[in-house]
Amino acid sequence: MIIAMQEAAGEDQIQQAIEHLVKLGFEVHRSTGARQTVLGAVGAGIDFDIRNIELLPGVQEVHRISSPYKLAGRGFRPEGTIVELANGTRIGGQEVVVMAGPCAVESRDQLFTTADAIAKAGAKALRGGAFKPRSSPYSFQGHGEEALKLLREAGDRFKLLVISEVMEISQIQLMLPYVDILQVGARNMQNFNLLRELGKVRKPVLLKRGIAGTLEELLLSAEYIMAGGNYEVILCERGIRTFETYTRNTMDISAIPIIHKLSHLPMTADPSHGTGRRDKVAPMARASVAAGADALLIEVHCDPDKAWSDGAQSLFPEQFAKLMDELRMIAPAVGRKI
Amino acid sequence: MIIAMQEAAGEDQIQQAIEHLVKLGFEVHRSTGARQTVLGAVGAGIDFDIRNIELLPGVQEVHRISSPYKLAGRGFRPEGTIVELANGTRIGGQEVVVMAGPCAVESRDQLFTTADAIAKAGAKALRGGAFKPRSSPYSFQGHGEEALKLLREAGDRFKLLVISEVMEISQIQLMLPYVDILQVGARNMQNFNLLRELGKVRKPVLLKRGIAGTLEELLLSAEYIMAGGNYEVILCERGIRTFETYTRNTMDISAIPIIHKLSHLPMTADPSHGTGRRDKVAPMARASVAAGADALLIEVHCDPDKAWSDGAQSLFPEQFAKLMDELRMIAPAVGRKI
Amino acid sequence: MIIAMQEAAGEDQIQQAIEHLVKLGFEVHRSTGARQTVLGAVGAGIDFDIRNIELLPGVQEVHRISSPYKLAGRGFRPEGTIVELANGTRIGGQEVVVMAGPCAVESRDQLFTTADAIAKAGAKALRGGAFKPRSSPYSFQGHGEEALKLLREAGDRFKLLVISEVMEISQIQLMLPYVDILQVGARNMQNFNLLRELGKVRKPVLLKRGIAGTLEELLLSAEYIMAGGNYEVILCERGIRTFETYTRNTMDISAIPIIHKLSHLPMTADPSHGTGRRDKVAPMARASVAAGADALLIEVHCDPDKAWSDGAQSLFPEQFAKLMDELRMIAPAVGRKI
Amino acid sequence: MIIAMQEAAGEDQIQQAIEHLVKLGFEVHRSTGARQTVLGAVGAGIDFDIRNIELLPGVQEVHRISSPYKLAGRGFRPEGTIVELANGTRIGGQEVVVMAGPCAVESRDQLFTTADAIAKAGAKALRGGAFKPRSSPYSFQGHGEEALKLLREAGDRFKLLVISEVMEISQIQLMLPYVDILQVGARNMQNFNLLRELGKVRKPVLLKRGIAGTLEELLLSAEYIMAGGNYEVILCERGIRTFETYTRNTMDISAIPIIHKLSHLPMTADPSHGTGRRDKVAPMARASVAAGADALLIEVHCDPDKAWSDGAQSLFPEQFAKLMDELRMIAPAVGRKI
Repeated sequence: MIIAMQEAAGEDQIQQAIEHLVKLGFEVHRSTGARQTVLGAVGAGIDFDIRNIELLPGVQEVHRISSPYKLAGRGFRPEGTIVELANGTRIGGQEVVVMAGPCAVESRDQLFTTADAIAKAGAKALRGGAFKPRSSPYSFQGHGEEALKLLREAGDRFKLLVISEVMEISQIQLMLPYVDILQVGARNMQNFNLLRELGKVRKPVLLKRGIAGTLEELLLSAEYIMAGGNYEVILCERGIRTFETYTRNTMDISAIPIIHKLSHLPMTADPSHGTGRRDKVAPMARASVAAGADALLIEVHCDPDKAWSDGAQSLFPEQFAKLMDELRMIAPAVGRKI
Repeated sequence: MIIAMQEAAGEDQIQQAIEHLVKLGFEVHRSTGARQTVLGAVGAGIDFDIRNIELLPGVQEVHRISSPYKLAGRGFRPEGTIVELANGTRIGGQEVVVMAGPCAVESRDQLFTTADAIAKAGAKALRGGAFKPRSSPYSFQGHGEEALKLLREAGDRFKLLVISEVMEISQIQLMLPYVDILQVGARNMQNFNLLRELGKVRKPVLLKRGIAGTLEELLLSAEYIMAGGNYEVILCERGIRTFETYTRNTMDISAIPIIHKLSHLPMTADPSHGTGRRDKVAPMARASVAAGADALLIEVHCDPDKAWSDGAQSLFPEQFAKLMDELRMIAPAVGRKI
Repeated sequence: MIIAMQEAAGEDQIQQAIEHLVKLGFEVHRSTGARQTVLGAVGAGIDFDIRNIELLPGVQEVHRISSPYKLAGRGFRPEGTIVELANGTRIGGQEVVVMAGPCAVESRDQLFTTADAIAKAGAKALRGGAFKPRSSPYSFQGHGEEALKLLREAGDRFKLLVISEVMEISQIQLMLPYVDILQVGARNMQNFNLLRELGKVRKPVLLKRGIAGTLEELLLSAEYIMAGGNYEVILCERGIRTFETYTRNTMDISAIPIIHKLSHLPMTADPSHGTGRRDKVAPMARASVAAGADALLIEVHCDPDKAWSDGAQSLFPEQFAKLMDELRMIAPAVGRKI
Repeated sequence: MIIAMQEAAGEDQIQQAIEHLVKLGFEVHRSTGARQTVLGAVGAGIDFDIRNIELLPGVQEVHRISSPYKLAGRGFRPEGTIVELANGTRIGGQEVVVMAGPCAVESRDQLFTTADAIAKAGAKALRGGAFKPRSSPYSFQGHGEEALKLLREAGDRFKLLVISEVMEISQIQLMLPYVDILQVGARNMQNFNLLRELGKVRKPVLLKRGIAGTLEELLLSAEYIMAGGNYEVILCERGIRTFETYTRNTMDISAIPIIHKLSHLPMTADPSHGTGRRDKVAPMARASVAAGADALLIEVHCDPDKAWSDGAQSLFPEQFAKLMDELRMIAPAVGRKI
């Protein structure tokens, strides 16, 4: 932390600030300039509220230097993390891994038809909601464990990994036997109790960025999981909320190279939620791969017009197959393959 | 819902759209203009995704007319809701109710000294965190039930209601004996499982707007609680996230009159989180009352410089007392009293 | 400016950074800590791009300490600026000055009827557009000089100051004989050529914050005008663009106390553009005064339903008179009068 | 426009609304439902403020159906616009056109060295600022006409088109002899006087989206130019302002496919301003091409560390050449070439 004192700060104020910092456990370095004194403070752990220092008399500005996370930071594993999964799939390696499937598991037929199609097109994991976060209490909320059983069965049948969303602590144990990856949705990015429990699990967690989550907050939420000992965290950009209303969300493609710089964790893109409109999914999926995404999460439905939720952003199976072909052409430009 | 067909839409596309709507349970009214056909669709419940209609061939635009909530809407109780509390305090009535106290309960001394001061200044409720949502896993997370006991004792001693934040379903039963109002924090505005459980409780819930929550989403979240039978919901503006970085959040004062128009529920303002800086709390508290707030939630600490959390936005007791005097001068301008 | 070197930075990188800073004209102070070296750099003018320093090898983070403006900063005139106007009105003094009038000057009748009403209610200045910035090329663009003449005549008749918007350099000389205050609209906050020309004028300028303008950028734009020698700048909050779509803009009331802290310039609020809806103007005007605004800019029209522009956010004269009464009750709470 | 009357609206209110609309020049179609009456209004020009209708008694909601622009809309030229330029380059055709060069023209050496390098790497146009919009009045503001002469000379020497920014009406005539494309910067997207003058010119205009400009506003600004008879408008995404502060702006890649759907005008991407950081330029340039951009605008400097402005976001010539190779691999995936 660096503390710039005001030009008008007196020696007593400077001494007071130094004492305050020492009491907090910091080692303080003083630099006395012609006009202004600057204090450097290190060593007191990564949890402090810089606003408290800003309010000390004579202090002009305070800047945090160290990042507030450590396990999630690039420095912790400079070589990058590769998450190794059951069927030999590796997220964060040379292959761009595509995960696809319906928004919600609706029926055996719907799920198996879709799973068959995405497997043939080259997807490696099957997504599908068993528990659904819906902004209206009157919307379909998911089939629960029944859906999980169908997902596992479809995954086994078509040699696909299974990923599904966990919304609440009590669902974790229920889901573990059925899924290969636990997904945390955007609305739960800062559900800290849930994150802490997921830190105790030994299964990969895909953590989505909240619609108003900064990238620093996303990494702090990853830190919650990692602090519990679960280092298999996969991050995911799925659109942020901005002033533009044409799309549901504004997909922040630049989050992909930024996360790769700040963190060692693999970075996924979800162009379906990122845009909310079917005809924008393919361009944004291609853009994500071109920007370096390690994996994609794409909604595909065997009959989107009849989907119970998010049909408007779900691809038809043949659109998905065509997209996979385009992605295969782009991947080599970034030294990857699909 | 209103569906505007494209000018170029053929009769078959119009018929197809009408059939689709009828299948969904809508009654459809057709208006054939010189250039364009418009369909009005009513009666199929309030839960549907208009994007699915937008994707039908020949459809140009779709607009929802009915609001997606009903229990939370003004029409449900045009006269407004007044939440009646244990000590005779009424939120939503003529009095502007002030709730104050520390961010977190730290110790018996800290809590009782603060409670004494705010009671003397005219506050009617004591706030204080027992469970703390912290963006870093390494931060103080609250004293839990011990804190709740202290809150209850201080509340009884100084004739103050007690309000504290619930973060997770398992905490609800634990908290009920100790608190008069259960607070849902901004990060949990869309924690739908938690909201649903709070609908089963018979105690008032103060629901804070998320930092990226639209007012419509806030009302939908209130609807979750009300749909369970708990109609004692109090809403709260506490700052939204914008591009401006000088303050932590941008407090949206206009949310106060807007909520009063859209809903019958009482509307509270939290200028402490709304700005994140102590010297901005008083101006924004005054602005909130001037704009018509039914209640205020203000962080006060007997010794803010030593606060374990949010000291930077906590008022000193004497600042709080001075602010109460200013608020008493403003309230009559909006036909209220404090 | 403070430069934090990476922990792994070598002595050569540190020397290289120091030399680079010295070449740029900075005086550099070095603080060598146990883990990390920190450089303080002062004295090289206020215009530099810190990103260039961030890219030097071995540099971890760079923070600007000095604000990038000086004439607009509080330190330049700690006692605050009071703009003295023709009819004895002082903006920035004890009185909260209310400026009101129609969005656009439409006709003699419309303007004089409105001016008469606002003068009787206690306004001190008459606003009215002669040149209108319209987002559509097909909208009414203002009556130009004819409107300016009517404004001056109405101002003289009802003892009101005249304020009107300048959109372009060529309009400045045309407007000077007619107006007392030149207004720069939100869309021109960063029209630097216009600002520079306004610096050569000796008439007060009311500068509105852009819908995406940070407060720092607002002050930098004020600096453009002041750097030319025109120190009579009045700032104005008129709503920023956020994700919330219920109102046109989100009025940032907290900008009022923040500007008062950062700058000596008077701060105005425009609740008409700040919300875009007539029924929200009064609550936000009250909130602005309660938060400490030095002046208000309010759209009033003698017959809003027939207004050629912005009728939806214009008050009826009797609404304005009622609002003035409310504001008179609130002003004393902040030590002001109206 | 569609007007949904309130369920409780009386017949007199409905008649009043109809009469109001007819007076405004609309043809009105009435649809009387079991619960609610809906009015469709067409034919009164594209300029009206729907808020005025919203305020009529008995009106619940008003929705605009027709887009507020026409010349810029897709329907005006469904086949798409191709802008044909002097050296045979076509923007909007099969080739993705790359424009590159320094932020500002600093010297003959700097410009010619850079121009040589980008021409060799495959760029088709040379960018370079002669007039610079700078947020601080103390920053370098451009070499003016001298810079334009150098641009033209370099363009002719290396067979590159010349593009440069116009900030003000008086610069238009000065620039015409030197440039092939006039660029309007983000800060001037709504400088309507400037746009109107550019409508009178017969030279292509590249119009950048403002940092808070919606896509509808961008198209309305294009409409200003086109309404004057200049149909050669090229649009450009260069980053919008959001809550995320890691990058200067958040580049909205989804704007590319959206503009292609809404408009016939070519769509360009500027990853240099879109991110503000050199190491993010290549990923975002690749993403733009993958999403379907018709052209790119990229800052390249022969010696970025010594650049007078925006060095931090300028590529080294060898980085640019490498990027061009990557883009050549991606273009075929979207049916394009470079």
